[in-house]
Amino acid sequence: MVRVALDAMGSDHAPATEVEGVVRALGELPPTFGVTLVGQAAVVEAELAKYPNLDRSRVHVADAPEVITMADKPLDAVRKKRKSSIVVGLGLQSAGKAQAFVSAGNTGAMLAASTILLGLHPGVDRATVGTLLPTAEGPVLLLDAGTNLDCSARELLGFAYLGSVYVRDILDRPSPTVGLLNVGEEEGKGNAIVKEAHLLLKTAPGINYVGNVEGRDILSGHPSRGRLDVVVCDGFVGNVVLKFYESVLGLVRLLASREGLWDRPETRRAFRMLDYSQYGGAPLLGVKGTSIICHGSSNAHAIMHALRVAVQSIDRDVSSHIGRELANREAAQA
Amino acid sequence: MVRVALDAMGSDHAPATEVEGVVRALGELPPTFGVTLVGQAAVVEAELAKYPNLDRSRVHVADAPEVITMADKPLDAVRKKRKSSIVVGLGLQSAGKAQAFVSAGNTGAMLAASTILLGLHPGVDRATVGTLLPTAEGPVLLLDAGTNLDCSARELLGFAYLGSVYVRDILDRPSPTVGLLNVGEEEGKGNAIVKEAHLLLKTAPGINYVGNVEGRDILSGHPSRGRLDVVVCDGFVGNVVLKFYESVLGLVRLLASREGLWDRPETRRAFRMLDYSQYGGAPLLGVKGTSIICHGSSNAHAIMHALRVAVQSIDRDVSSHIGRELANREAAQA
Repeated sequence: MVRVALDAMGSDHAPATEVEGVVRALGELPPTFGVTLVGQAAVVEAELAKYPNLDRSRVHVADAPEVITMADKPLDAVRKKRKSSIVVGLGLQSAGKAQAFVSAGNTGAMLAASTILLGLHPGVDRATVGTLLPTAEGPVLLLDAGTNLDCSARELLGFAYLGSVYVRDILDRPSPTVGLLNVGEEEGKGNAIVKEAHLLLKTAPGINYVGNVEGRDILSGHPSRGRLDVVVCDGFVGNVVLKFYESVLGLVRLLASREGLWDRPETRRAFRMLDYSQYGGAPLLGVKGTSIICHGSSNAHAIMHALRVAVQSIDRDVSSHIGRELANREAAQA
Repeated sequence: MVRVALDAMGSDHAPATEVEGVVRALGELPPTFGVTLVGQAAVVEAELAKYPNLDRSRVHVADAPEVITMADKPLDAVRKKRKSSIVVGLGLQSAGKAQAFVSAGNTGAMLAASTILLGLHPGVDRATVGTLLPTAEGPVLLLDAGTNLDCSARELLGFAYLGSVYVRDILDRPSPTVGLLNVGEEEGKGNAIVKEAHLLLKTAPGINYVGNVEGRDILSGHPSRGRLDVVVCDGFVGNVVLKFYESVLGLVRLLASREGLWDRPETRRAFRMLDYSQYGGAPLLGVKGTSIICHGSSNAHAIMHALRVAVQSIDRDVSSHIGRELANREAAQA
């Protein structure tokens, strides 16, 4: 049995979106998958009652009377709201009652609570959120995608290790290429931190580093090395790129509509790849366990997809592999 | 007569691209427009000889035997290569023999040389490159687009003033909205510099500030204020976003081709807006004069467009308006 705890109170339309996502996931994921909805029990049960045919042996509810809002300060909220869905949900994982936690709630609180309650693997300075961006040649992992706004060069190097393990495990790419997001490909480009990160990455054992990459290379691939697997940047840049990309489908739809093209099934099929609800669920990498972050604006499809990402991460044992990778690296440096 | 000096040695395929751009511009722009090609005179003349019907009363050549390459360190190059096309071309403007300078060469050298040879308007801390990004509702000016990688809050505020004047003059938008690119719209989001810039912008006289904006708002518009006119960010983020966007057309073309849609004229028409060669020519704002920067990979169409931007900037008197705007601001603060 694989049991995933899901924050029932996280999204903009919680708990309806979360419950609908669970209903879909039960149909899509293997019968060994079960979920524990974490939130205000009466509210969650009332929502579940709308689906009388639900297999309740697979769907549990854990009560969490408090709610962390988007306006709460992350660390404060985690310390003070001990009965919130995020703290209770991650607590289930620490206690061995769930193997993963998924939330569309306050991202900063998820980062803080996951770091405190699950702990970091030795050798990890900071956990990081990675996001898969769709490209014509398959997804590329961008990290950090918005949790760590200021990063040191050493932290950027750490992201390269975390991202490489995730892509190897989840996308089955044995030797992932890593690019450092920069303003030019030449040596010596960039601000002080990025220049230092480039030097660290160049000599880092176990990283298939292709060098500095530019904004265009994320979608188009590196001029000589082709598709990138992992693109490393600080969370400010990553978040801007991610959200910018999320708006491209809207532009494409609008431009196609103006020529009467959007109603045609082949047009929608062509650009379906850009639909971000397919990619719900960004892993928080570096924590001892599995913590998956969703957009506050997630729909049921995105929640379902995030639950799938959680199950994949458990099945492929991503967290253990990260622990081993970093232990090997520390040993090599000692 | 409007005379624009053009670096003949700047682009990847110089001087052929530049000369072809000039030929096109002579046909497109008013007969009062003339150009001075600045570069190795023999090479430029040989290229011009391919167009025997050219009206040479409108096309002059100024000899500049030295070339600043992309590998040169900007400030060194400007100081040492006094006979380079960038230094000679900007010198024509200082001497009143041209009213603008356009170059697809080394951007850092253009920034350094323009700052030194033309000077900055009083009240400008640093000149900035602005780039117009196409959106479905018209272009939005993103600045800085890659020249100033690290910016102080005060510099970001300065970009808001420079961008507002440019958009007012060139796009005829009387009260341009300004957004600060950030990771969230709420007060208190962002790194330390962006937080401080938000506070400065909120109280800045003469700026129509709409607040923090996210990556998605660049293309989609602000959730309540609609289309943005000016988006302010540091040059690292701006450069990544700009280049990322430049690669979107390639992705759209590839996805449309897979469904056999790209061969249809209505598809190409729908997405023509994304063709970046239409938008060649980014203004360097804050200098006393007109300095226009092009991509090294510019084609003749982009060069032609950059020459048009130069002529517009002269006609609308952007530089004087920037000087006046900043003088008013200084006076208001005194």
